[in-house]
Amino acid sequence: MKASQFFISTLKEAPADAEIASHKLMMRAGMIKRLGAGLYNYMPMGLRVIRKVEGIIRAEMNRAGAVELLMPVVQPAELWQETGRFEKMGPELLRVKDRHGRDFIIQPTSEEVITDIARQELRSYKQLPKNFYHIQTKFRDERRPRFGVMRGREFTMKDAYSFDRDVEAAGRSYENMYQAYCRIFERMGLQYRAVAADTGAIGGDRSHEFQVIAETGEDAIIYSPEGTYAANIELAEALPLLAERAAAAQALTKTPTPGKSTCADVAELLKLPLTQTVKSLVLAADETNEAGEIIKTQVWLLLVRGDHDLNEVKAGKVEGLKGGFRFATVSEIEQHFGCKPGYLGPIGLKRDGEGSVKVVADRTVARMADFVCGANEVDAHYTGANWGRDLPEPDVVADIRNVVAGDPSPDGKGTLAIQRGIEVGHVFYLGTKYSAAMNATYLDENGKPQLMEMGCYGIGVTRILGAAIEQNHDERGIIWPDAIAPFTVVVCPIGMDRSEEVKTAAHKLYQDLLDLGVDVLLDDRGERPGAMFADWELIGVPHRVVISDRGLKEGQVEYQGRRDAAATKLALADVVPHLQQRLK
Amino acid sequence: MKASQFFISTLKEAPADAEIASHKLMMRAGMIKRLGAGLYNYMPMGLRVIRKVEGIIRAEMNRAGAVELLMPVVQPAELWQETGRFEKMGPELLRVKDRHGRDFIIQPTSEEVITDIARQELRSYKQLPKNFYHIQTKFRDERRPRFGVMRGREFTMKDAYSFDRDVEAAGRSYENMYQAYCRIFERMGLQYRAVAADTGAIGGDRSHEFQVIAETGEDAIIYSPEGTYAANIELAEALPLLAERAAAAQALTKTPTPGKSTCADVAELLKLPLTQTVKSLVLAADETNEAGEIIKTQVWLLLVRGDHDLNEVKAGKVEGLKGGFRFATVSEIEQHFGCKPGYLGPIGLKRDGEGSVKVVADRTVARMADFVCGANEVDAHYTGANWGRDLPEPDVVADIRNVVAGDPSPDGKGTLAIQRGIEVGHVFYLGTKYSAAMNATYLDENGKPQLMEMGCYGIGVTRILGAAIEQNHDERGIIWPDAIAPFTVVVCPIGMDRSEEVKTAAHKLYQDLLDLGVDVLLDDRGERPGAMFADWELIGVPHRVVISDRGLKEGQVEYQGRRDAAATKLALADVVPHLQQRLK
Repeated sequence: MKASQFFISTLKEAPADAEIASHKLMMRAGMIKRLGAGLYNYMPMGLRVIRKVEGIIRAEMNRAGAVELLMPVVQPAELWQETGRFEKMGPELLRVKDRHGRDFIIQPTSEEVITDIARQELRSYKQLPKNFYHIQTKFRDERRPRFGVMRGREFTMKDAYSFDRDVEAAGRSYENMYQAYCRIFERMGLQYRAVAADTGAIGGDRSHEFQVIAETGEDAIIYSPEGTYAANIELAEALPLLAERAAAAQALTKTPTPGKSTCADVAELLKLPLTQTVKSLVLAADETNEAGEIIKTQVWLLLVRGDHDLNEVKAGKVEGLKGGFRFATVSEIEQHFGCKPGYLGPIGLKRDGEGSVKVVADRTVARMADFVCGANEVDAHYTGANWGRDLPEPDVVADIRNVVAGDPSPDGKGTLAIQRGIEVGHVFYLGTKYSAAMNATYLDENGKPQLMEMGCYGIGVTRILGAAIEQNHDERGIIWPDAIAPFTVVVCPIGMDRSEEVKTAAHKLYQDLLDLGVDVLLDDRGERPGAMFADWELIGVPHRVVISDRGLKEGQVEYQGRRDAAATKLALADVVPHLQQRLK
Repeated sequence: MKASQFFISTLKEAPADAEIASHKLMMRAGMIKRLGAGLYNYMPMGLRVIRKVEGIIRAEMNRAGAVELLMPVVQPAELWQETGRFEKMGPELLRVKDRHGRDFIIQPTSEEVITDIARQELRSYKQLPKNFYHIQTKFRDERRPRFGVMRGREFTMKDAYSFDRDVEAAGRSYENMYQAYCRIFERMGLQYRAVAADTGAIGGDRSHEFQVIAETGEDAIIYSPEGTYAANIELAEALPLLAERAAAAQALTKTPTPGKSTCADVAELLKLPLTQTVKSLVLAADETNEAGEIIKTQVWLLLVRGDHDLNEVKAGKVEGLKGGFRFATVSEIEQHFGCKPGYLGPIGLKRDGEGSVKVVADRTVARMADFVCGANEVDAHYTGANWGRDLPEPDVVADIRNVVAGDPSPDGKGTLAIQRGIEVGHVFYLGTKYSAAMNATYLDENGKPQLMEMGCYGIGVTRILGAAIEQNHDERGIIWPDAIAPFTVVVCPIGMDRSEEVKTAAHKLYQDLLDLGVDVLLDDRGERPGAMFADWELIGVPHRVVISDRGLKEGQVEYQGRRDAAATKLALADVVPHLQQRLK
């Protein structure tokens, strides 16, 4: 490609609404152009990256035996009503009525449509396993779209769906996709980690997020540097930090803590380690009748150590909270604790019958002795609190806190570390959630209908652009990995209009690289060197060759890798072999 | 590709709602699957054709210097309000509100968005000409979707938009796209014709439809078999069929024609040629005030020869009808003609002032003498009517009729013929229609802002599948042209499970063809020969090689082109060279 036949449009400044590096750089490099909130035009430079990302995904999906098809963007509501998602999903599902007033949705994913295809097309066990995928435009009406392509409303996604005869076969399909995803992100040249994730109501352990490692990532990834353990923070298991509960050594003492309503403040005031304090969080679980009216509310007290945070996903797995919960209101708290929030604790509560509070202690809290907690009295805390002596044992002991760096690894190998990541892919075992709702069955060897076991596998195509940039950029711009760069090599001639030698050498190198199948761009715009170099450093083309009159006089050109500190002088004849070596 | 890794799903019967061959065959061949009215899943077999069609379009668009980008499916209404299309377009424009109640549309085309991009990005004459295109999902909420992909609601379209500094440069961009379109449809192996089309309010002669020739086509294409003239029926010029008006030879006579209200019936009753009769059509043009209230209505009588049909597009170009018209109501007709429809004519009308009727005669009618027309009296016609003597000359003489086969060609070369076509592409000079509405200007050499001259260029990607099939099919199924076939060659081994020789030969041929870059499918499903052949004839793969035990014993395999009457026996070693020859 020659620059004169392409469209290059860079900006000195990023727009004010661009908050993160990838958003700023994509706008400045002319990769995307804002059309509306969360809506972007993919400009020619950005579209080239998308096509390369799609190409890698497609090649590896096909290699894994998945078959590509294409499902519509606009989908009839009927199918989404079969699974209940038409009603259940919030306003992020964009609903639209056609000219006849019929309901449709703009697809955010395609479980319903693919299950509809499968229940019609996959009739016999002989047709299983089957994995269908498509790469399609999706829409998710985010309440607050931001971060450019990272949380846009319209985006491109690859979604695949596997259909299997039983759980075991579904496990093989899952593993197959897991391996395909590893190859995909490896081929893209991204540093990533596959982390175990929560499966919610479906259960089981078959859910992995593929996270691109980046300091600016929204997600916390928990991993064991010494082992293979990796999970997202919602799932990562927090082991108890105490081997056993020590014997009580202190007397229970009510201490004035005026105005100190956080564990940190209390610990500081009392000159005690924060790890001696216990944090109280009050939840409420409503029981409703068929009409959706609340008929009963149970109040719960959840206790984590003062330096720990509650993990709401884990809390949602506690028996009694599985059906959903919310934070208790101030009036509910005052009614049950006789005190306003800030000084709450587990001592002196009604633990049974009408108006009782159920107490859940984190595994570590359950083993603490002589701990500090709120006294259920404004401006007062207890010290020297002990289970069994000062208050009944907790109703439930469970892992309800977020892991923190330094926690022991659940696989027994050293301690856990935390890094940030950006989720770009997700493999998920669905079980029969959709096949049961939509009656998607196949006939087994005995001619008996059986529900299909399903898995779904997504990759955020456009999101990968943002994630790759968050991981790979510097103060000058983007640094694309070779495999997904808009161009792999840029040839920058200096003064091509003045020097026939430069022009000839530049065109020859360009043609030689094209002939070798290298994705090369010849910058024939005639820009001054400074502007030209700034453009390509901003755009992030990984390999640059500069051809100048002065260099040619010495038979030399300059090669510079985008990450190289300085340029390398090469004989003109050595450039192609050098590039071939670098591109391997 | 091996069939076992792909997805093949053929049907014996087409669904009842499939009316035309391409719809039936695409459904039966498992290329598409209905999701809702006008909504189709593109199944793996159909998607392969789409990808090939897109590939050809992309290659030729790039070769023509157009630059690919991607504009969103969901677009903010604001831009569509700038051009007025948000209000003006009917319910075929799918409108949707987001979670905040803001208006959006699902794009049917992208003139507004591309003009918005151009007015921001193309600031100087140095950046022109520029042509941007994308291949994207579109939606058009057809009142009555039908004919499968031919008139679906969601479809894939390539739309390109050119931006030029002046009319002359825009003409070059137009010609460039015209030539690119010719290459595109030639490469696809389709018989097509580029026909001049009406430009509506924009005027000028720069609008061409690219029509795939097919007997079942919806559009009539007018062309000169001896010359190069080709136009659609809306535009094709109808020359007068009489060199000059003959002198009056008959007296004006009122003749009873009881119950004969059509020209054909009257001619038969009076034993006169139909070409002696004149057909009367009554239109009304309303003048409205700013509030949209009708303040005045002018009634028009349009006259075409009895064997001709009114062309409403041409009628719309008559001064006084340009602002829009409708057919007159019965009460308007009775008020102005004193007679109910069926016996209307131009004699005895009030031609001036309040309540007058304006008379438009087709070019041929204006030269007729002694003609037959309605007498504005039930059950009566005049014979021997003559302009000037029996009624005033027409107010307007114009080409207002459809061309018919046998009319003289406007280019003076022989007579016109008519064939049917399916519109798959359209090149259109837009002028400053959108740039003026959206103030898309560039700075010229003098730093003065000038409106950009635009053109738009569409190709219906998914529609091409239907059109190609309408043109290329037989009673057994589809006959794809090589370039857009889902697979170019299918290798059909017979009894591969029983014969190691067949298996080896089939796999070797498959691998040899793959190595040569041939898009080949190996049918390893193990189907019986009859079912296997029926599948591939239905699906329409253009080249088939059958490998059987019996054949191999004689060192032979069978080759059959999809259009060949019979198979050709070839030595196994000759198959590859034979195919290479056929695929050239």
